[in-house]
Amino acid sequence: MFKTLLETINDTVDLRRFRESELEQIAQELRAFIIDIVAAKEGHLGASLGVVELTIALHYVFNTPDDQLVWDVGHQAYGHKILTGRRDVFHTNRDLGGISGFPKRSESEYDTFGTGHSSTSISAALGMAMASALKKEDRKHIAVVGDASIASGMAFEALNHAGVSGADLLVILNDNAIGIDPSVGALKYYLTTTKSGKETGNDNIFESLNFDYSGPIDGHDLPLLLSELKRQKNLKVPRLLHIRTVKGKGLKQAEIDQVRYHAPGKFDKITGEIPASDSSKLPPKFQDVFGHTIVELAQENEKIVGITPAMPTGSSMKIMMEAIPDRAFDVGIAEQHAVTLAAGMATQGLVPFCNVYSTFLQRAYDQIIHDVALQKLPVIFCLDRAGLVGQDGATHHGVFDLAYLNCVPDLIVAAPMDAVEMRNMMFTASQGLELPIAIRYPRGRGKIVNWKQPFKQIEIGSSRLLKSGKNIAIISIGPIGTMIQELLEHENLNCTHLDIRFLKPIDQKALDRIFKNHDHVISIEDGTIIGGLGSVVCDLAFAKAYQGIIHKLGIPDSFIEHGPTADLHRMVSIDRETVLNLIEKLKA
Amino acid sequence: MFKTLLETINDTVDLRRFRESELEQIAQELRAFIIDIVAAKEGHLGASLGVVELTIALHYVFNTPDDQLVWDVGHQAYGHKILTGRRDVFHTNRDLGGISGFPKRSESEYDTFGTGHSSTSISAALGMAMASALKKEDRKHIAVVGDASIASGMAFEALNHAGVSGADLLVILNDNAIGIDPSVGALKYYLTTTKSGKETGNDNIFESLNFDYSGPIDGHDLPLLLSELKRQKNLKVPRLLHIRTVKGKGLKQAEIDQVRYHAPGKFDKITGEIPASDSSKLPPKFQDVFGHTIVELAQENEKIVGITPAMPTGSSMKIMMEAIPDRAFDVGIAEQHAVTLAAGMATQGLVPFCNVYSTFLQRAYDQIIHDVALQKLPVIFCLDRAGLVGQDGATHHGVFDLAYLNCVPDLIVAAPMDAVEMRNMMFTASQGLELPIAIRYPRGRGKIVNWKQPFKQIEIGSSRLLKSGKNIAIISIGPIGTMIQELLEHENLNCTHLDIRFLKPIDQKALDRIFKNHDHVISIEDGTIIGGLGSVVCDLAFAKAYQGIIHKLGIPDSFIEHGPTADLHRMVSIDRETVLNLIEKLKA
Repeated sequence: MFKTLLETINDTVDLRRFRESELEQIAQELRAFIIDIVAAKEGHLGASLGVVELTIALHYVFNTPDDQLVWDVGHQAYGHKILTGRRDVFHTNRDLGGISGFPKRSESEYDTFGTGHSSTSISAALGMAMASALKKEDRKHIAVVGDASIASGMAFEALNHAGVSGADLLVILNDNAIGIDPSVGALKYYLTTTKSGKETGNDNIFESLNFDYSGPIDGHDLPLLLSELKRQKNLKVPRLLHIRTVKGKGLKQAEIDQVRYHAPGKFDKITGEIPASDSSKLPPKFQDVFGHTIVELAQENEKIVGITPAMPTGSSMKIMMEAIPDRAFDVGIAEQHAVTLAAGMATQGLVPFCNVYSTFLQRAYDQIIHDVALQKLPVIFCLDRAGLVGQDGATHHGVFDLAYLNCVPDLIVAAPMDAVEMRNMMFTASQGLELPIAIRYPRGRGKIVNWKQPFKQIEIGSSRLLKSGKNIAIISIGPIGTMIQELLEHENLNCTHLDIRFLKPIDQKALDRIFKNHDHVISIEDGTIIGGLGSVVCDLAFAKAYQGIIHKLGIPDSFIEHGPTADLHRMVSIDRETVLNLIEKLKA
Repeated sequence: MFKTLLETINDTVDLRRFRESELEQIAQELRAFIIDIVAAKEGHLGASLGVVELTIALHYVFNTPDDQLVWDVGHQAYGHKILTGRRDVFHTNRDLGGISGFPKRSESEYDTFGTGHSSTSISAALGMAMASALKKEDRKHIAVVGDASIASGMAFEALNHAGVSGADLLVILNDNAIGIDPSVGALKYYLTTTKSGKETGNDNIFESLNFDYSGPIDGHDLPLLLSELKRQKNLKVPRLLHIRTVKGKGLKQAEIDQVRYHAPGKFDKITGEIPASDSSKLPPKFQDVFGHTIVELAQENEKIVGITPAMPTGSSMKIMMEAIPDRAFDVGIAEQHAVTLAAGMATQGLVPFCNVYSTFLQRAYDQIIHDVALQKLPVIFCLDRAGLVGQDGATHHGVFDLAYLNCVPDLIVAAPMDAVEMRNMMFTASQGLELPIAIRYPRGRGKIVNWKQPFKQIEIGSSRLLKSGKNIAIISIGPIGTMIQELLEHENLNCTHLDIRFLKPIDQKALDRIFKNHDHVISIEDGTIIGGLGSVVCDLAFAKAYQGIIHKLGIPDSFIEHGPTADLHRMVSIDRETVLNLIEKLKA
């Protein structure tokens, strides 16, 4: 059977055997290969399509893996994976046990640095370059970073250091004016007209940081890329090559609707169409409950503002950005700034909802402590994607938040069990609290179709006793409580079920009652056992000299890989069956 | 008695009653007042001396506190405090119950935003400015930020957003080419020659971010400052005024030796001399044990490198920077970058010691999880200033690290009891671990004079049984164990004492033995009880169905103010007397 050129490429040595004139065809094949698989398997599409030419040119010109390449974020690394020995397993992308959707060191020597969160590539590549210099190795080091990611503070810190490091470091700025959502901020506008100081006689922003700047050039022009990269290969200073690309390049719909085609789900690989589906009768995604509810609240209360660091679509803050544009702000990939901006607004009596994915709030931990909690500023944090998030995997699971927030004084930590509770928590918080609050909720859909109920105030620190039973009490936090509720009902199990709602302040009275009347307490949470609900329950049980046994279910002390969320829940034993087996064992 | 002008100023209304020509005299008096008090009381000197003229000019021209002023970091806010109602209590600066050494919202309406950590001011002031715009208030918002702080990522994120916000925001860049140590990085060099695009025809770095740039002007020229600030007051766009100042201005020695006079301790207010003192016979500071030990290790092992984010003096990394300059790096106020740079170096087989104050490591929490632990890269974190730090107060106490690190998988968390143990932990880590390690140690001096003992390997996760006793066991982590050891010996108390050494992995076998043979277990730590040693001990005790009682001593769930460390230890009940009383009560 006739083989495509791509099918003969098992590593970069194979790639480099081709003539330059054949690379265009490889680009076509690579693009088609990505589209073919992502159309059926789902995954991140647009970013990888945008760097097909760049990926080929980099591996063709540079001596990878000896020369070291770091892909910022890693959404765009599919082509890289396919060209570096993973073509035949690429169909397992994001599957349980399959390859990761992001670069991963344990997967390939070509993946020099694991990514997932943005703006780490320049720091990592600089570290490698400095190490090579110390070891007197002659290797090249390249960071590929997008225009949205380079605007994040961490990238600036790295540029500021790299500029005086003398390191042999090539930063490739992949400028497509979009991250997941369109890029924002002053730098974005600047990049549209940047010129080299060689032309203007005055340093541009990168030259100001002592980088040798080249560009901008067309990142889809393979011959131009090849010749420019060859030139770059012979330089030895901190340097930045500015290329312009089109996210989604080569698939018309993906070029036009770049936000939707970032990760479009299944689509028709020929037409690019995403099959219509009617989700109107499904329970809504938690993110949409957030998005609609904040608009509802903000329409009644003009002090409410919304802040998202570069996730208007993912967090559904865009609903408010469309409905009330002067009070909803996308600040870019800038979690630190987002949190302290919210703190500044709160000092003036505004009611800021700061929506950050749980895993990305790790970027603003100091700001939560130092700028918000220490000053008792009533910022309302909405933590989307809390718990295990599925296919995005270890870099993205939002499993540490309960632990890292619980030790912060003067911070309320809440997790609603369902959409109605979530709305009521948002409502309660918006009525004015004396302290900041973090409301965590998961990726995906809840279970309640009729979610838009009238608002009710919730007493901060109060739990809900959902069922009174005997011997065994289950204490849950968050939507995993719905699974418990269904289990108890369906299996007709006579167990107590407490939806704790607030990890902090915790409902001590309710827990005392539980301790008094039950031989076994099961705590269950979609977060780390260490430092989360289980730890808190244990602490209190000890304080009350509880004589029963506590069974803690939660994320164990290890990083959890990617895969469907339900599978992951089973793997870490926070699934229905585990709870059922445990209850049956305890009842026996 | 003759009153100085300064003595008549109790708020900014008083200040504004003076003629412009009298402000020079007020500046002289203010400078003398600061020197007088800091010479006797200790505190931060150089930064406040450098902004005397700016402080007066700002409060004179702007309508503070209605116009809102945010001081970045806050080291430089002494003059601000003295002019805004706190002259008569300024002698209580940094005392227990006295005023804070940093701006603090609860202290004065002039302190619009509490600071302490760097680079928050632009975000906070922008939040205020955006709030004022929404509320249609006519107020001005000013952030004063130094050149070292503006180079930190968070400040860049704020500039990038502010530039497109349209906010009425004035950023004053107080450029003195030094933070606590001399500024580093590419931006520092750029600032020495920055010119406005109005002169050159091409945007400078701030103009690139859509700021209206003015300057640089002499920040000690009061008439010039006044006229420029009056002009700035009438602008309404995001704008940056670049002023040049001299840190320590007006005290000759402080101008010459700016690092030493940042916080010089007691000195002669007339001559500026710091009294000579012979500390050679005292036990060393933990930071110096770090500084000397890393040099010792690095001289034997060329893979060792040292990284500090802007704390070469405070961490004593400067000892290595002087001894082995090509392997010790100050990366500026860039904790995020520092950690991921270390991760990049570790991928290449280097052995990076990344030294960050415990409180500042909060800035790099995501990088520890995502770039280091997730990839099992054996970075060695040395966490200086862990635990209560004394007079710097709530913003600087390093009390959360045990809790926020313990929930991170694949990270070793250690706290040596003394300098000898600390050296051995550093030695052990430098021999090559499979995982990253965090070694935390406090501010100040230890107790061991003869600290430079031959290195010994320590088994990771092993504790030290320092004393076997009856009924009562004390489990300590870190140098607080020395206090316990002395107490037991001095009072001849027959208690068991376990120096746990590693919070993670914890020595379960040793704890099991403790649980078996003791009715009471006391855990004690200089860190938050929530999520720290006490929580871990409780968890394990429960798992082992321990029937005794656990008494957890540690930092309670609230922010702890400033004051002498010994006083703070008493306040939070982790002092000798508390432990003694507890033991006596339990023995009774």
